[in-house]
Amino acid sequence: MKTGFVGLGAMGAHMARSLHRAGLLAGAWNRTPAKTAALAAETGCTAFDAPPALARACECVVLCVSADADVLGVVDALLPGARPGLLVIDCSTVSAATAREAAQRLAQVGAEFVDAPVSGGVEGARQATLAVMAGGTPEAFARAKPVLATMGRTITHMGPTGYGQATKATNQILCAGHIQAAAEAMAFAKHEGLPLDRVIETLGQGAGSSWYFVNRAPNMVRDDYPAGFRVRLHEKDLKIAREMAERHGVHLPLIEMTLLHYRRLIEAGHGDEDISTLFRLKDAMFGGGRE
Amino acid sequence: MKTGFVGLGAMGAHMARSLHRAGLLAGAWNRTPAKTAALAAETGCTAFDAPPALARACECVVLCVSADADVLGVVDALLPGARPGLLVIDCSTVSAATAREAAQRLAQVGAEFVDAPVSGGVEGARQATLAVMAGGTPEAFARAKPVLATMGRTITHMGPTGYGQATKATNQILCAGHIQAAAEAMAFAKHEGLPLDRVIETLGQGAGSSWYFVNRAPNMVRDDYPAGFRVRLHEKDLKIAREMAERHGVHLPLIEMTLLHYRRLIEAGHGDEDISTLFRLKDAMFGGGRE
Repeated sequence: MKTGFVGLGAMGAHMARSLHRAGLLAGAWNRTPAKTAALAAETGCTAFDAPPALARACECVVLCVSADADVLGVVDALLPGARPGLLVIDCSTVSAATAREAAQRLAQVGAEFVDAPVSGGVEGARQATLAVMAGGTPEAFARAKPVLATMGRTITHMGPTGYGQATKATNQILCAGHIQAAAEAMAFAKHEGLPLDRVIETLGQGAGSSWYFVNRAPNMVRDDYPAGFRVRLHEKDLKIAREMAERHGVHLPLIEMTLLHYRRLIEAGHGDEDISTLFRLKDAMFGGGRE
Repeated sequence: MKTGFVGLGAMGAHMARSLHRAGLLAGAWNRTPAKTAALAAETGCTAFDAPPALARACECVVLCVSADADVLGVVDALLPGARPGLLVIDCSTVSAATAREAAQRLAQVGAEFVDAPVSGGVEGARQATLAVMAGGTPEAFARAKPVLATMGRTITHMGPTGYGQATKATNQILCAGHIQAAAEAMAFAKHEGLPLDRVIETLGQGAGSSWYFVNRAPNMVRDDYPAGFRVRLHEKDLKIAREMAERHGVHLPLIEMTLLHYRRLIEAGHGDEDISTLFRLKDAMFGGGRE
């Protein structure tokens, strides 16, 4: 399936290369034309200078952009070139409501939409080992799956349009709780004088274990937080989860607490560090003397 | 090493049987004499009617009781029968300060002390697969290790007296964060209409995973919370962690939130359910119509 790519950021550039290696990449468009030109030079794909031309030339368009408004903006920009049967796959992390709105706008010209947010980070994008959580009709998902399989290792259909985004939001809530737990527990352990590497090794094998504890608590021991999953991006994702919950009239207390902490970290200049930098705040509570 | 056991509760009775299977159990004492008699009938060990007699007859005494005051009360009761070289191993979950106090009282008669709280629950106690986190001098730990190895699978020396308890408290902080995350994420997912079993299967393989999510989120799908790790006991352990943190002048926000939620659950009659019952509260936030 001739596929175009929109959004050549840290994730998108690697994902476009995965499509190229599978022989699917026909062309790309990016808000910054230099990035499109670089990918075209590297892969031989067409550098489109406007979304409608890309939509006309492709059977499938994959998006990987930043925010809800960006997704709807790109969809609107594709529409003049869209036609029945065009498949748009959105790998951005946005709200389920945005996914449903994008699907509706495309349906008006007979085009299909799949929301397919990913997890696994830049590492997963480069190695094409992303986990993809998808929402859409069974027919649209069946068409999207081989495209997604070039970029990810597990491709799961979670349900109708928006269910991919809802699953991703669920994952981001889990990550918030786990980094809260890891940071608070490690700050406690440090101030009890415990041997921290042995704590991670011992507790990482038991019922107190999590992926974040095993893989990111070592950052806290070294006091070094290379990204990773940037605070700024997790903040964005948690605001999406909060907005989705607010549609049910609900506040998520764990998420509220995490957003407060992230705001402080961002204001202190740590927004581009891995979320394990939350240890800085928890450590400071114990009189770590920083922030 | 001739070993006596004090505290034949849900955990202790199984641990005493493990000592018996290894040929180490010489006798037992329990506040409720009927439990001692039952163990004696089952294993042929001596049913002591007072702690000093048990201390006199044994080289090692293992405690598994409920609260800080119980540990110090039993230590005081053992003292008249204690002598240089007696080894007391405390498998209860109490504060590091209590461990240090117990060690000091025993040191006055030349007896040794190891704090050795366990994790793995009643299941782990029965199968002798507990994880043991120990604190004490290297010499005392070396003597305690073969005794502990009859009851557990991994026996780790964390450092001086109290470090076993500090490690256990760290573990309980992790569990609090993980059950908060699992319950909040699952309530969110439920109210987004997601297929919950598929959510657990998918997210349980990625960076959002934790032992509690994988093993206890299924309780939330079935809305059934068999113990497990009882809310009441985790509340007790978190209060210990809070008290330890307060010695540093610190509040642990995640633990404060969890204690508030546990109090509500206990008042609503759910204190003897597994901690995954926290889903009830998070679900109710979304208008689940309960509590």
